[in-house]
Amino acid sequence: MRMSQFFLPVIKETPAEAQIVSHRLMLRAGMIRQSSAGIYSWLPLGFRVLKKIEQIVREEQDAAGAQELLMPTIQPADLWRESGRYDDYGKEMLRITDRHERDMLYGPTNEELITDIFRNSIRSYRQLPRNLYHIQWKFRDEVRPRFGIMRGREFLMKDNYSFDLDIAGSRRSYNKMFVAYLRTFERMGLKAIPMEADTGPIGGDMSHEFIILADTGESEVYCHADYLDFAAPDQAVDYDGDLTPIIDHWTSRYAATDEKHDAARFEAEVPEDRRIVTRGIEVGHIFYFGTKYSEAMGATVTGPDGGDIAVEMGSYGIGVSRLVGGIIEASHDADGIIWPASVAPFQVGLINLKVGDAACDGAATDLYARLQAAGVDVLLDDTEERPGSKFATMDLIGLPWQLIVGPRGLKAGTVELKARRGGERREVSLDAAVAELAAG
Amino acid sequence: MRMSQFFLPVIKETPAEAQIVSHRLMLRAGMIRQSSAGIYSWLPLGFRVLKKIEQIVREEQDAAGAQELLMPTIQPADLWRESGRYDDYGKEMLRITDRHERDMLYGPTNEELITDIFRNSIRSYRQLPRNLYHIQWKFRDEVRPRFGIMRGREFLMKDNYSFDLDIAGSRRSYNKMFVAYLRTFERMGLKAIPMEADTGPIGGDMSHEFIILADTGESEVYCHADYLDFAAPDQAVDYDGDLTPIIDHWTSRYAATDEKHDAARFEAEVPEDRRIVTRGIEVGHIFYFGTKYSEAMGATVTGPDGGDIAVEMGSYGIGVSRLVGGIIEASHDADGIIWPASVAPFQVGLINLKVGDAACDGAATDLYARLQAAGVDVLLDDTEERPGSKFATMDLIGLPWQLIVGPRGLKAGTVELKARRGGERREVSLDAAVAELAAG
Repeated sequence: MRMSQFFLPVIKETPAEAQIVSHRLMLRAGMIRQSSAGIYSWLPLGFRVLKKIEQIVREEQDAAGAQELLMPTIQPADLWRESGRYDDYGKEMLRITDRHERDMLYGPTNEELITDIFRNSIRSYRQLPRNLYHIQWKFRDEVRPRFGIMRGREFLMKDNYSFDLDIAGSRRSYNKMFVAYLRTFERMGLKAIPMEADTGPIGGDMSHEFIILADTGESEVYCHADYLDFAAPDQAVDYDGDLTPIIDHWTSRYAATDEKHDAARFEAEVPEDRRIVTRGIEVGHIFYFGTKYSEAMGATVTGPDGGDIAVEMGSYGIGVSRLVGGIIEASHDADGIIWPASVAPFQVGLINLKVGDAACDGAATDLYARLQAAGVDVLLDDTEERPGSKFATMDLIGLPWQLIVGPRGLKAGTVELKARRGGERREVSLDAAVAELAAG
Repeated sequence: MRMSQFFLPVIKETPAEAQIVSHRLMLRAGMIRQSSAGIYSWLPLGFRVLKKIEQIVREEQDAAGAQELLMPTIQPADLWRESGRYDDYGKEMLRITDRHERDMLYGPTNEELITDIFRNSIRSYRQLPRNLYHIQWKFRDEVRPRFGIMRGREFLMKDNYSFDLDIAGSRRSYNKMFVAYLRTFERMGLKAIPMEADTGPIGGDMSHEFIILADTGESEVYCHADYLDFAAPDQAVDYDGDLTPIIDHWTSRYAATDEKHDAARFEAEVPEDRRIVTRGIEVGHIFYFGTKYSEAMGATVTGPDGGDIAVEMGSYGIGVSRLVGGIIEASHDADGIIWPASVAPFQVGLINLKVGDAACDGAATDLYARLQAAGVDVLLDDTEERPGSKFATMDLIGLPWQLIVGPRGLKAGTVELKARRGGERREVSLDAAVAELAAG
């Protein structure tokens, strides 16, 4: 992509309304624009990151045996009356009346709708287990939306729902998601720590939040420093095998949010020099809630002995749009964002320092074509901005690599290759630059 | 994917509520389920088709130089008051009041929101032209939703918006979309004919609908039979070159919907044996509307002479979810759907006729693994249904190829390869089957 043609409205000034760094940087980098309180448009740069994150979530869900479908955003109130949550949910639910005066709502989550689909389609225990997910926009009418897309009203969430015949099966489904979540966040360059959680309005009696550590997090967290060195399960993990050892390992140390924190246990279990007390951002949440919805809504299957059995259910959420902010909170410096390669909107920012200079234009165009041919996503800065402004913009938008083409280097046959993370710079030949970037 | 694990709730009976064939077949094939009037969930089989169509639309937009972003579903009413459309739109607009009593709405289209993004970001004529698109769910509160997802309330649409400095530039943007649309529909196996159209509530003075011919279409159409033989532009089309010859060719014959039909002209211009009078389904619509929104909302750029110029705009829509139904209307038979390969949910249905028979299980598993390794999307019917039921389901869901593994053929070293379209069947060796299907 040529920057001269790319819709990238960067902002030089720091926006006054943004209180946290991810919000500031997303506005400044031209990733998002607010259209009303807590509701944002994703401009091309932000959209590319959102899609990368969505795709990682999808791949790990598929690998764990979940199947993708798509439920609508607007749901009938009657389904929520069946579960009893229509009244419980309060003002965070965006309630809507359609032209025929029917009560509708913009889904904040989908337990009712998926249970309805299940009960209309699945009849026999032989059709279990099932794990269905979708990646869809949700709405929660926050009283005070803030922190940009971190606590917005319209947000993109991956949510899935498991259906099992018995508690043991449900536990296996829960474990699969636990492992898939560890892998998902790890692929995004995040260290997400599972912490026991309250189940809140979803209900149920087993639940973990996946929390990334960041000073700007919404809640205080307490955990053992060992977690920082734990390795996520490998891609080759066998989801049909016994996942218990992985779960045991990842729950073997103390880790708790404010809500569940037990100061005495923390001090007893964690040596003083291994205690981490900081703030955290919730990026995922998994629940087992048994038959809460299946009983209320009649989601039963015929069991082996012919009787009706209410299915055991769990639900599992990942805040896809929130992760964009979470990754920035965890990975930035004073100059801007530092994208992990797996979610970067482009891999390389190719800077032509002297547009109009025949040698620079020729080399930049040549590198651009060769990198694209090698399958590398490149953003070519072919604008007429001053070098200082070009460097600042490229640091701000945080692509993993910068490749800088200037007249002085070209005379020596070199370009400058800069790693955004760490800032290391090297003079390399054009061929070496292409070879290194093409190798990933 | 193994059918025993795939969430595919096919229905044997013909659903009484479905009046047209695409609605019937989508329900029977387990592609969609209604959650309330005109609002559907996309089950895994339907979701896969929806994504394939979305991706073709995306690729052709990108090729034509449009850039993807994503606007939210919920919009502030104030923007629509600026354009004057808040009152005009009537009851088809889903109006919402949030917890702070602010007037919001579920976007039926996005002219106002994109114009707001534009005016906050683009200042100079040097930053033109721009063409921005998104693929997002829309809502129109139809008084009588029907025909399944063909005339639903919540639907997926690709809409984009062009911004140019002058009318000549706007015409070039319009022509690019005209060409991109021809290519998009052609890739889906559709013959879409551009017909002059009224501009309706969007406003403007140049507009074409892209219509596919089908007996079940919503409006009567009249056109010259020559269109059926016109070839869509090639992939190598140069979007920066002169597209006028393509537009001229594709508008050289008579083609009109009811609204614009002129019986005298039709009879004068089209020889009697070349007159097509049938019904049509609108799958795309492009508009040029000049400065209607830019003037009302102050979307101006500084021109070459320093003065403010209201930008020339156009908008362009493709009904992504509607296309799923449109393709079925255009491509089915008495037994079910016949997917064009480009949008098929899987390329091959691999039927194991005798599950439990060692030879059949072995051959089916082997073929399944080899086809997957070759990158072919395969649905393996490993269920214990009777052969007749397996054939009926596979015909119903309409995958391009069926590969049938049975004990009799295996004794002779062969499997049966059946083309869903046309129904041709051949006995081939296992190796030949893999080679042929892997070659596409």
